This record gives sequence, structure tokens and C-alpha cells, in this order.
Amino acid sequence: MTEINLDNLEDFIRGTAILGTGGGGDPYIGSLMLKQELDKCGSIQLIDPKDASDDLFAVSVACMGAPTVFVEKIPNTQTAIEGMRRAEKELGRKFNAVIPLEAGGLNATLPLAVAARLGLPLVDGDGMGRAFPEFQMTTFNFCGVKCAPFVMSDDFGNTVVIDTEDAARAEAYGRPVCVKMGGIAQIASYAMTGQEIRTCTVPRTVSLALEIGRAVREARVKGEQNAAEALISYFETSNPPRFSRLLFDGKVEDVIRESADGWVRGQVSLANDTGNKMEIPFQNEFSRARLDGKTVAINPDLIMILDRETGEAITTETLRYGQRVRVLGVASVPIMRTPEALKVIGPRAFGLDEDFCALENIAWNGSD
Amino acid sequence: MTEINLDNLEDFIRGTAILGTGGGGDPYIGSLMLKQELDKCGSIQLIDPKDASDDLFAVSVACMGAPTVFVEKIPNTQTAIEGMRRAEKELGRKFNAVIPLEAGGLNATLPLAVAARLGLPLVDGDGMGRAFPEFQMTTFNFCGVKCAPFVMSDDFGNTVVIDTEDAARAEAYGRPVCVKMGGIAQIASYAMTGQEIRTCTVPRTVSLALEIGRAVREARVKGEQNAAEALISYFETSNPPRFSRLLFDGKVEDVIRESADGWVRGQVSLANDTGNKMEIPFQNEFSRARLDGKTVAINPDLIMILDRETGEAITTETLRYGQRVRVLGVASVPIMRTPEALKVIGPRAFGLDEDFCALENIAWNGSD
Repeated sequence: MTEINLDNLEDFIRGTAILGTGGGGDPYIGSLMLKQELDKCGSIQLIDPKDASDDLFAVSVACMGAPTVFVEKIPNTQTAIEGMRRAEKELGRKFNAVIPLEAGGLNATLPLAVAARLGLPLVDGDGMGRAFPEFQMTTFNFCGVKCAPFVMSDDFGNTVVIDTEDAARAEAYGRPVCVKMGGIAQIASYAMTGQEIRTCTVPRTVSLALEIGRAVREARVKGEQNAAEALISYFETSNPPRFSRLLFDGKVEDVIRESADGWVRGQVSLANDTGNKMEIPFQNEFSRARLDGKTVAINPDLIMILDRETGEAITTETLRYGQRVRVLGVASVPIMRTPEALKVIGPRAFGLDEDFCALENIAWNGSD
Repeated sequence: MTEINLDNLEDFIRGTAILGTGGGGDPYIGSLMLKQELDKCGSIQLIDPKDASDDLFAVSVACMGAPTVFVEKIPNTQTAIEGMRRAEKELGRKFNAVIPLEAGGLNATLPLAVAARLGLPLVDGDGMGRAFPEFQMTTFNFCGVKCAPFVMSDDFGNTVVIDTEDAARAEAYGRPVCVKMGGIAQIASYAMTGQEIRTCTVPRTVSLALEIGRAVREARVKGEQNAAEALISYFETSNPPRFSRLLFDGKVEDVIRESADGWVRGQVSLANDTGNKMEIPFQNEFSRARLDGKTVAINPDLIMILDRETGEAITTETLRYGQRVRVLGVASVPIMRTPEALKVIGPRAFGLDEDFCALENIAWNGSD
């Protein structure tokens, strides 16, 4: 049985930052939050979704807001717990587990801090298999879990409960409230039974973050492979194995970034020594990579930008001119590529006017 | 005992439009809504706040949004009732009366439609004594009634429940949700006991609307006084009597108006034949009248713009170039002028950089 503890915390955090695909905020904050809890409780037990018993009743806890805000206004574990308690009051039932909504960024860490503080187990899986910017963009939603009660809590003891069958509407109603809450809100939503956990989850993504973080660290220690190469090797034998590809090796030439309406939106432009260009737009997370004008990876597949020297993830809010980076594309898992899934997390959901094409099916001539 | 029925409906509606002080939307819509209910139930019984028994438990129902939207997206009685039911669920107690939040505009009518459909009595009083643009701007709030649960409902069966001790925060969190709900939301809030109804209400404002509407109609029929003169005469003997003054007689020269953020904001400029000018800014309702640059009436006192021929109220969204109008100032009642009240409904709450001065204390040299 896998657990998260002080010994593997740094690997886990590194992995969540990489799975954040540009979003999810500064991993250092998540690391501090979780260390504080692990200092007290020692470890957090993980439950593989396939082993979820029928009597499990899990809640997803997450922050809403732009990651640019999270670095100044830090997510609060107690506020998250208050939202969870409010959801229990609505449902008339206590939660006995916590499930992450996202596999990447701070929202991959916050559920562990909550689970640790309450002594609850954590489901080793999530609803995105990465990070996405909106609350309807989850397997939980398109596999049939109800988002309501969608409970928002702020740091002043106030809560907002949104009751709707439509997760996109919960997102639409909730986002401007989040802005009014100071740019960050804690969300408790998608209450799930054991049966739903078994069927509506991207499985083993907490372990995945741990293993990704370990692979990058070991590559750095050994010095035989760079982080991108190490991750490509890792994904060949991950559970399940996944196709991945080095998309670009170059430097940041330009970043356009705006924090508005509760998100950070923009685009990063990269160039290499042989004159190739890559453009990657983002809404909290990277949504498409185009090489010399041609799409080479697109949502919901994962696009990761790694620091060329350290292999650490570079998030959208820390992108800056001159950074040397490697861009990695990783195939998303099948549950994220169904027709139902693509309606919610496919390119058009991000305003990109093209259809999804799986990373492994995109013709590839290299970037130089 | 006063009642509202089909015979006095038109007088009542006319009066609510005048008490709307520019806000509250098209009275014709309220008239149709209420006629539909009165056709079925016959009449609505009114309870004078001083006679409210301890076992009364009333809810305030109101629309949130810009009146410019209400004329296209009409308030829905059933949606209001759904919000009320949600509030009952939160409180674990059924309501046995309805209390208006506002004395003016559609929000003075909607509570009657709800009371009529449910067969509940209506409190003959309200929380504003006129109309105001924000939900914390009420005697209920500054006299100590809790706004929570602040329940918002839309026409698609969705609800948003805001739990906060701070009415201004409920307004701040709710307003952008209202925008996302299509520019209009039904609100159930300020659940009140009989004791609170007796002490936190502007009394007899439903009767007041009725009597104002009657005074204007009778003036028109008799032709002896214009509507403004008739109202000044009426206020001399109303219960309680109130100071009032004709502030201007002229025509509309200019209107600036913008519907944004869930309100309609702007300013109307008037002129008369002798070259005097009056400027009246508004946020849903008129907030200040300045004659040749000098303030002659200011919130929370009431500023009414009446059509010179018919005596009907002109609302901010129907103001247009060339209208011939009379502007009337009416003193607000003492509960609206306490230091606590002025913090919430005084000039500075509307961004006006001056202190309140009571209408009757403002030196007056006339407008020509």
C-alpha cells in the first residue's frame, strides 16, 4: 500500500507540479502546507480506486482561482474543511475519504493536507489526470457524478452553496464569486460513493505524481538522462504505459499573460537555435503546442514545460524571457478521450478551433 | 384592515412606481403579474407591522438585477417561491407571511404575487421605504435582521445559497451570480420574526403606495392640482406626515445610461425655460438632485421624477430626451436617517462625496 510521507513528499510535490501542465500554482506552497500536516500525522494512506469499498463516501476539495493569486493568497486547509462540513450538512452524511479533483498543481496537494488533518484516507486517483482550469472539466462530471452541492468557502467563515445538475453552470456561477472572495475560493464538490470512485476516476494519479517526481530526481542524481528523457523512459513502463514525446528544446522568447475573470490566460512563444518556433496558449494550463504553425499536441493530452537544467516544472505564472526549457507531450488516458470527455475537455472547450488528435497519431518530423 | 384587490391594483402599482424613485423597472409588468394572481385569489390581506404577532415568520422576496433587464426577462413568481422553499429548508421552519424588501418598483409587487399564490398575508411595510439598488441597503440590515440564508434562484431550478453575517458581502457575492443567471435573480432573504417585523420595518408602505397612486389619479380626474401638488398635499397628512417639495419643473436635456455589473447607472440632466439646470445621477434609483450645481435633495431622501402631464413615475430606463417632467423631493422617515442608517444608505454609500442633509433643512430659493 502506497503512502505519502515526509520521505517522499518532495518527489510527490515535484510530480504534481509537472502534472500541473503549467497550472496549479507554486509547488513550494503546497510543499509547505503538506509538510506541516505530515509533521503531525506522519503519513497519508492511499486507496486504489479499484479497491474502493461501497461504503466509501468521498469529497473532492480544491481551490478555485488564478494560480497567479495563489502565490500571494495561500490556500487554507481549515477553510477547505469548513466547506466540506457545509457539504456534509447539505447531504446529511459524513465523508470518510477525500478525493483529489486534479492530479497537478496545488489542487493535487490540498486534498492531502485535508485528509492528513482529518485522519482520512485519500483516493489514489483524481478527476482530471492533470490540471484543468474549470470545474466541469473532469471525469467526475462526464462520467455522471453530481457536482452539487457545490460549496464555496472563504477565509472569513462565509459559504456559498450552488445547487445545480449542470457542472458548467456551477463553474459559471461560482467563478465570479471566487473573484469577489479575493481571487481564491475553497471548493467542496463532487461527493462520490465507492461505486462512483471505481468507475469515474483517473486511477493512480497520486502514485503517478510520486513516480514522476522520483524519475526526475533520479535522473538529476545519476546525470545519465535529462529529465525529459527520464520521463519518456518512465512512461514506457508506467501503469498504464503512455505514449510521450519531446516536443521542443529551446528558450522562452515571449510571454503574454493576463490575470482576469478568475483565471490567468496568455501564450508563451519558444524558439530554438535552428530557427524553429513553438507557441503554447494557456488558460491556467497549457492547452496546445504548435511547432512552426502546426499542432503537435493538444488538450486533453498533457503538455509539460520543464526547466532544461533542473527538470522542474515551469508554471504559467513563472514563465519568463530567456528560460531554457524542454517541452514534453504525454498522451492522456482513455477515460479522458471518449466522445463525452472531448466535449468537455477537448480543444473546443478551450476556444481552440480544431478537433482533438491523439499525440501518438500526429505525424512527427522533429523540431530541427 | 387594508387589502390589495383588483379594484385598487392600478392605484397601488402607480404608487409603487413613484416610490421606486426611478428604479424598480416597468410597473406595467408588475401590474400584469399581480392581476394574474388577484384574478384567482381575489385579495391580499395586509398586516400592519405594529400588529405583527410573535409567531409570524416572514421572508423577504425580491429580484436582483438591473431594471433595464427586467423589462425583457420578466420576474417569475414560481422561481421566487422555489427560493423561498430553499430558505425554509435551510432554516428548518416554514414561513407564514411575506414582507417586501422595497416599497417601490417591481420589488414592491413581486412579494404580493408570491403572497397571493401561496395564500399568505403580507406585511404592510418594507425595508427601504422606497427602492435602493443593493441588498444591504435596508432597515432590516442596519436594525439587526440577519440576511442569511441569502437564497438566489434562477428560472432553471438552480439555487445559490449565501451564508454570511455581512449583508454587504451577500450583495457582493450575489451580484455577479445574478449577472451569470441572465441579469436577473430571485432572492429570498432576511427571514424575520414578529418581533423583528415590529422594530425593523418602515411601516405602512404598501398602504402608502396605494394612497400615493390614488392621490395622483384623483388629481388627474379632478384637474384641480397637478400630480406633484397633489402629492405635496397628501404628504402633509400622511401617516406619518412628511416634508416634500417641488424641486424642478422642466424637460430632459440629456441622459447617460449604462447597464453593467448588474445595475443601470447614469445621470439625467434637466433644464427649464429660465435657464436653470438640474442634474440627477442614478444607480438603479435617483441618488441626488443638484440645482445649478447645488444639492437640493440627496439619499436616503426620495427623489421622484413625474411625467408633467400624467403624473406617472418615469423610471431611469425610460428617461429620454425631451420629456416634460416635475421632480419631487420627499423626506425619508426617521428610521432611515439614524447614524447607523446613513452609513448604509447615506450619500457616501453611493459614491457621493458629501454628507446627508435632510430635505427640510436645505435652504431653498426656488428653481426660477
